[in-house]
Amino acid sequence: MATARILDESKVLELAEPLPLDGGQSLPGVRIAFEAHGTLNAAKDNAILICHALTGDQHVVSNHPKTGKPGWWVRMVGPGKPIDTDKFHVICANVIGSCMGSTGPASPSPDGDPWGMRFPVITIRDMVRAHIALLDALGIEQLHAVVGGSMGGMQALSLAANFPDRARAFLVLASTARHSAQNIAFHEVGRQAIMADPEWREGDYYAHGRGPEKGLSVARMAAHITYLSEEGLTAKFGRRLQDRDEKTFGFDADFQVESYLRYQGLSFTGRFDANSYLYITRAMDYFDLAEEHGGRLANAFTRSKARFCLVSFDTDWLYPTSESRNVVHALNASGVPVSFVELSAPFGHDSFLLDVPALDRVVEGFLNQ
Amino acid sequence: MATARILDESKVLELAEPLPLDGGQSLPGVRIAFEAHGTLNAAKDNAILICHALTGDQHVVSNHPKTGKPGWWVRMVGPGKPIDTDKFHVICANVIGSCMGSTGPASPSPDGDPWGMRFPVITIRDMVRAHIALLDALGIEQLHAVVGGSMGGMQALSLAANFPDRARAFLVLASTARHSAQNIAFHEVGRQAIMADPEWREGDYYAHGRGPEKGLSVARMAAHITYLSEEGLTAKFGRRLQDRDEKTFGFDADFQVESYLRYQGLSFTGRFDANSYLYITRAMDYFDLAEEHGGRLANAFTRSKARFCLVSFDTDWLYPTSESRNVVHALNASGVPVSFVELSAPFGHDSFLLDVPALDRVVEGFLNQ
Repeated sequence: MATARILDESKVLELAEPLPLDGGQSLPGVRIAFEAHGTLNAAKDNAILICHALTGDQHVVSNHPKTGKPGWWVRMVGPGKPIDTDKFHVICANVIGSCMGSTGPASPSPDGDPWGMRFPVITIRDMVRAHIALLDALGIEQLHAVVGGSMGGMQALSLAANFPDRARAFLVLASTARHSAQNIAFHEVGRQAIMADPEWREGDYYAHGRGPEKGLSVARMAAHITYLSEEGLTAKFGRRLQDRDEKTFGFDADFQVESYLRYQGLSFTGRFDANSYLYITRAMDYFDLAEEHGGRLANAFTRSKARFCLVSFDTDWLYPTSESRNVVHALNASGVPVSFVELSAPFGHDSFLLDVPALDRVVEGFLNQ
Repeated sequence: MATARILDESKVLELAEPLPLDGGQSLPGVRIAFEAHGTLNAAKDNAILICHALTGDQHVVSNHPKTGKPGWWVRMVGPGKPIDTDKFHVICANVIGSCMGSTGPASPSPDGDPWGMRFPVITIRDMVRAHIALLDALGIEQLHAVVGGSMGGMQALSLAANFPDRARAFLVLASTARHSAQNIAFHEVGRQAIMADPEWREGDYYAHGRGPEKGLSVARMAAHITYLSEEGLTAKFGRRLQDRDEKTFGFDADFQVESYLRYQGLSFTGRFDANSYLYITRAMDYFDLAEEHGGRLANAFTRSKARFCLVSFDTDWLYPTSESRNVVHALNASGVPVSFVELSAPFGHDSFLLDVPALDRVVEGFLNQ
């Protein structure tokens, strides 16, 4: 096998050989954009792989190049933080299919034009294969831990099941071992919103203006509701009006929650590719770790020698506690050491990204056992 | 006041005078399409008004003129049924703002063109004012009962608060006294999906093809998820594939739940007007019965001499049991007789429309007390 190249200046790995995919195809010319912090020790055994969520990216602690905002997990990762870069070498790679430097539908295909909808449908396991290729290139045989929330947790579980020797610990936050019918339904609404936008042009919009921004915005709005709790929305917005004393009897954003959602939708279109949204939601919908292992989730972990920690949040209705409990039962059935906690936090699914001090303690404690 | 005319052949009432609206305007030339079953007795005191939900209509037991399907509540209404047309004169009127014969944005405005977005924003109380005008025209001073589920329950509560002498009993199913931030958020997604469709044309689409069908379809899909429970979706669809043995690694509707949702969206566009969807969701979002009564819900019922029954469903996450309980507490605080039950049913919010025998017993029992 030819040697993969790391393009140091931009932290992009270019794979020398095509990446085999679950769908049967191989993806040529794969690039993997990643970020790394903290020093890799001589034994190369202090690395932690952080796996990001659906619309996340490798900018865990660095400013986002498009929005200029701080990295998405600066509260958790850094010197002296729960994921301590003074102790650990922390790596986060943009998943394939995404749009922040790793190969996805907006990337050039072998014919030079963007892949668009010719990009192969990928799976969570395919994303993990790319992570493994990165670890190989970095010479990291075994990670200290894999950490991921939401879709990041799916990658962590898939890595545990498919590459059990590549990490000693797995920390899975607000996640699930399979997408439920309701999860699929919400994603399908988002995909249909994108595909309904005439600017989508069957995915071939890259040379034609700004793409399906309206459809992508609606998709993001629908998804965003599922990331928050009803209680959190009520506490944050209730029925308060936006910059006015009276209802206008019109269709402006009278309510703060309307204004907030519209902003979430619009700002998302400036940083994310609509086709990537289609492909990554599809990968999540396809995820069913039990199905890959003869229909029995416990089978996924029979080869595991790692230890696990599962965390759920009591207000998360996207991946509720019962989903984490399913994974814990399977790990127990396989005799794998696992700790499990449901934390109380008002923020719904997004709790893993927000200020939940109890989570900090769980993360720090688990990684330093 | 000029006399309202009932156009008997089509059960349409035409109001002689403009209908005053909460927004400050008056709506001229209002038509109210309705359906009536069972005989009105000589004392005119055996009438029951059924109030329909967001996308419902007056076709409670008659076949829908566009879809040909049976009326939406044939299981509940008819001879010998829980709402017994052998005993009661049952009336159901299409709400104003809708599109099944009552005046709405698709109706001709005074200049002869459809109202479109020039239609005034209406409220739940405005819908109720139209119901009262219908009762006046029918010579019905006091109803035996008002019955409504979901938005129909909001109309029942509004009627109880604003016209307390017009009914002796109120039966409110799966409803709420105010729209929550999450309720508003889901409606806003639907409105944005419609308005994002270039075929919407700022609401002026009636002379231009088929209107914003794609946007309306996405709106319906998003809303439909909120009408079902996670458990119900899992039981009905789970992760089962649609007419195939393997995932296609594409964007077809691989999963049954995707296929089902797409069908729900598409079929809705054949029977509902997109602008009506905008106006009626707005009316629901504006609904806050406490706000209309000095911020204290109990104040809404201080003049009431009627009896009430509230029913919620344990899997309804759109208007969960806590919302019904709020209403019950307010009624209790006003010293109004009320019974309350949370029924167990797997169908989520839609339970009030579906086969829940316990609901039949509650409805029959309450109406025959």
